Amino acid sequence: MVGEGLIDKEAAILRITPGDIENILFPRISWHTPQKNVEIDSKIIPVETIGKGLAASPGAATGKVIFDSDETVALASEGESIILVRHETTPEDVHGMYASRGVVTATGGLTSHAAVVARQMGRPCIVDTDSQSIMRVDLKKKIIRSGDVIIREGDFITMDGFSGKIYKGELPTEKLSELPSELSKILNWADTYSKLEVRANADSPADNKRAFEYGAIGVGLCRTEHMFFDEGRLPIMQKMILADNKEERISFLNILFEFQEEDFYEIFKSAEGKPITIRLIDPPLHEFLPKELDLVTEMFEMRLEANDELSEDQQKELQTKEKLLVRVQEINEMNPMLGIRGCRLAILFPEIVEMQAKAIFTAAARCENKGYDVHPEVMVPLVGFDTEFLEIRKVIDRVAEEVFSETGIIVDYLVGTMIEVPRAALTAGEIASGDKGAEFFSFGTNDLHQMTLAFSRDDAGKFIAHYLENKIMDSDPFETIDQAGTGKLMQLAVKEGREAKPGIKIGICGEQGGDPASIEFCHKLGLDYVSCSPFRIPIARLASAQAALKEAAETALKEAEQAALKDEN
Amino acid sequence: MVGEGLIDKEAAILRITPGDIENILFPRISWHTPQKNVEIDSKIIPVETIGKGLAASPGAATGKVIFDSDETVALASEGESIILVRHETTPEDVHGMYASRGVVTATGGLTSHAAVVARQMGRPCIVDTDSQSIMRVDLKKKIIRSGDVIIREGDFITMDGFSGKIYKGELPTEKLSELPSELSKILNWADTYSKLEVRANADSPADNKRAFEYGAIGVGLCRTEHMFFDEGRLPIMQKMILADNKEERISFLNILFEFQEEDFYEIFKSAEGKPITIRLIDPPLHEFLPKELDLVTEMFEMRLEANDELSEDQQKELQTKEKLLVRVQEINEMNPMLGIRGCRLAILFPEIVEMQAKAIFTAAARCENKGYDVHPEVMVPLVGFDTEFLEIRKVIDRVAEEVFSETGIIVDYLVGTMIEVPRAALTAGEIASGDKGAEFFSFGTNDLHQMTLAFSRDDAGKFIAHYLENKIMDSDPFETIDQAGTGKLMQLAVKEGREAKPGIKIGICGEQGGDPASIEFCHKLGLDYVSCSPFRIPIARLASAQAALKEAAETALKEAEQAALKDEN
Repeated sequence: MVGEGLIDKEAAILRITPGDIENILFPRISWHTPQKNVEIDSKIIPVETIGKGLAASPGAATGKVIFDSDETVALASEGESIILVRHETTPEDVHGMYASRGVVTATGGLTSHAAVVARQMGRPCIVDTDSQSIMRVDLKKKIIRSGDVIIREGDFITMDGFSGKIYKGELPTEKLSELPSELSKILNWADTYSKLEVRANADSPADNKRAFEYGAIGVGLCRTEHMFFDEGRLPIMQKMILADNKEERISFLNILFEFQEEDFYEIFKSAEGKPITIRLIDPPLHEFLPKELDLVTEMFEMRLEANDELSEDQQKELQTKEKLLVRVQEINEMNPMLGIRGCRLAILFPEIVEMQAKAIFTAAARCENKGYDVHPEVMVPLVGFDTEFLEIRKVIDRVAEEVFSETGIIVDYLVGTMIEVPRAALTAGEIASGDKGAEFFSFGTNDLHQMTLAFSRDDAGKFIAHYLENKIMDSDPFETIDQAGTGKLMQLAVKEGREAKPGIKIGICGEQGGDPASIEFCHKLGLDYVSCSPFRIPIARLASAQAALKEAAETALKEAEQAALKDEN
Repeated sequence: MVGEGLIDKEAAILRITPGDIENILFPRISWHTPQKNVEIDSKIIPVETIGKGLAASPGAATGKVIFDSDETVALASEGESIILVRHETTPEDVHGMYASRGVVTATGGLTSHAAVVARQMGRPCIVDTDSQSIMRVDLKKKIIRSGDVIIREGDFITMDGFSGKIYKGELPTEKLSELPSELSKILNWADTYSKLEVRANADSPADNKRAFEYGAIGVGLCRTEHMFFDEGRLPIMQKMILADNKEERISFLNILFEFQEEDFYEIFKSAEGKPITIRLIDPPLHEFLPKELDLVTEMFEMRLEANDELSEDQQKELQTKEKLLVRVQEINEMNPMLGIRGCRLAILFPEIVEMQAKAIFTAAARCENKGYDVHPEVMVPLVGFDTEFLEIRKVIDRVAEEVFSETGIIVDYLVGTMIEVPRAALTAGEIASGDKGAEFFSFGTNDLHQMTLAFSRDDAGKFIAHYLENKIMDSDPFETIDQAGTGKLMQLAVKEGREAKPGIKIGICGEQGGDPASIEFCHKLGLDYVSCSPFRIPIARLASAQAALKEAAETALKEAEQAALKDEN
């Protein structure tokens, strides 16, 4: 229509909805009309629905049902398409989720681990099938039961992340491998109107590639903890955590350094000269250790099996587990969300941040040496006090200097902070002030909402639905920014941050960074960028342009009104 | 000196320090000089130190060592003096702590459960002896070991909550049973200067009596959850929580109603016509249930003991426990601090707040009927949205109307809210606005700090010490208000609350309400009252007057300077 001169570019941009883009980008089931049938090998075949859950991440996928993450990885590496089915997922399932074509969980809500991680990875995800349908997942027997239908491990199912429905068998799906050229053209127009730039939450070279194809101008959040969970690394990470003293801890950190340096090297190499914001390690340490209850259960089961008459080897094993249990109990926290994690780890164990900084700058120098242009932005998580930031920045700057003088290569880098603790927003001026103050802010709106609203994302699912249904809240704060509450803190932080350091770069890297309403709010706050999962980038680019165009239209209207008033006088 | 005309009243008030009052009010060891000796039966006896911990609550106490809370209650009811010694305390130890003369825990920090509850109760408390000394508590063997010295259950020890030291044997202590008349006189002078009134955190008629003797003008925080933990009530509370449906739940609530109504009746009767702020039930429900790990352990131990060959009765017991376990796991939360508690319980289960409101107004009407003057102020905890408050207030007002029309007695009452979720502070204007808006605010500074700083009080002890030592923070936010961060939220809430509802009553009822620096800050914010534990009331009265006098002096100085400037011109 623009080509035909029927509408102008601005009208074209305003006419597309984010939902349009969502529908274009994600794979979907190739329905034969009516939607109860598909066409396979020229035959019209009716489909059989076996369950339904909450549509937690869009897209359709088909594959063999597997109930275990390690097995998913193993089979996927042989080229199999796998749908990972679990009761719920934890950080230890991340590699399985990544290897899968899609994820189904029996429990959880739209903000559960499975939902959030699957959206980030762009995997379709359906959660809470237990409450939403008669489908039951039996992990012990390794079957899915739905009335009389039984799906065994290895059987094919097809999931539709748009509707939340799960079908028996392998239905045909269709997807676009890249942005359609028409959409690409419109988004390129859109970018010329935008004030708010779009970055990606991307943790790997593959994520980077996809993100840049979709138009991200950089990475706003590269998480590093995934680098510790990978096979071969978790045991070393565990030994590091369980180390009795600093010396021992450093010896394991030195091993982890090798892994991380290589990871960062590959990430920087794939950065195409764009800035990469790297978040230092964030989660509480016990996420890397076995759970207390699992350990106790294992120990009892050992004793039960042996009728309490253990062999010498078994006794030794039991003692090892007991020792581990003591450490797990020591590290356990009542409210891990509010405990020792983020920069608190870095304050208590500076050797961890030292290792990470060394890995970042060594990799960056190695890249520069090979002719790649590298711009790391080191981001400190969970800062609440300017003093925390300053202490950690001191370590980062020192390590950078050491690497630069050793390699003779100077890398352009920034050090900034997440704004995710309410106190950080309230004292943003202090955190940004001075030469050594934060050079950028990134609102971690997931955690900022958790704390500002006192909503644990892991637990709040239980009442958020009730709150939405009963109009206690208008929208889910983990999907769209709570402007009246959390938004006020953000506004304050922007004001104080810019007063203390004019021109400080400010962005957002929470889940809400891909939500159109939140993007409009960020535009109004005057942020520099939003960062979201690669698969939401086209939507974010559109929303950013729409926010700018809307604002321009409102300004024009106001000016016209004022001019009219003037004329009247 | 005032009597002799050497100094005036104001000078007298400013000359006393809070430490002076602390030292006067709490019992202490009657040392014989030097402090390594005491005098018993006219004999000078050297004392033997067996351990040292953090001085978590002041005062000295002597008694028999008991390692179990139920046993402490049993022995104390026979007139024994008991020192309760635990690894840590939980809400289920509260009755034991109350029955004891003092509490010692092997772990924990100055903000652990033991420390906070003991301070509230005015019991001396020493925590963290494990890290601070060679003393070891062995709960299995029921002994305390300190080098070669072994203290068995039933042996006497003496604890000094001022120094954190623990001594072998029964040392003489001395204490004042009421305010010395000189101090009383000075505090009465002090009250005439104060703007900030002093209320008490008091949960029982005994607490009320002590609080009013010490000069509290009302109760700022009467917690109701203790009313559910008492013997004979906890099993009913548990049945209520585990009920399968609303009808069943209400049947157990009806039993709890009888208990609560009687509790409130006694509390109102002892109120002497002063306002009593009652906080509706606050903690997450799983605090009332057995812990998951304990249940699993019990079940395994049953099976182990029977070599996995259980009798029919044992099988039944196991099944019951298994069923309970499923519910406990359902209710369990990752971060209970940010989960389903406070007003969220009231929104999800309105029948709970309905029962509590009915108990409050029925008791109040019964009191009024007997000629007592009653002023309940019903306080809704954990509000974050005005819509939450309005929905709950609707229930409270309806129940009040019902009771009033049934009894023909109208009770003067208010409905207000805690401000403890950052979002509540940020949207205080909305929460206070309108006829049905909150009639008073009470800053719950414990939780407000937990969320604003992302410090779980249960976990933060592990790093707060490190932060203080390394000057990351100037002071412990759970002792003295973090003015630069949390204080900003408080200031905002006061401003918005007063704009929306001029004259709205605003107070504070966190631990910090008894801290002189925090009291001065509250005075500057223009709050109406601070509420603190009964034993801190004299200190709070002094601090409140000192804040007013300091401010007056500063104002006078400024005026003088301005007058001088004027003269110069």
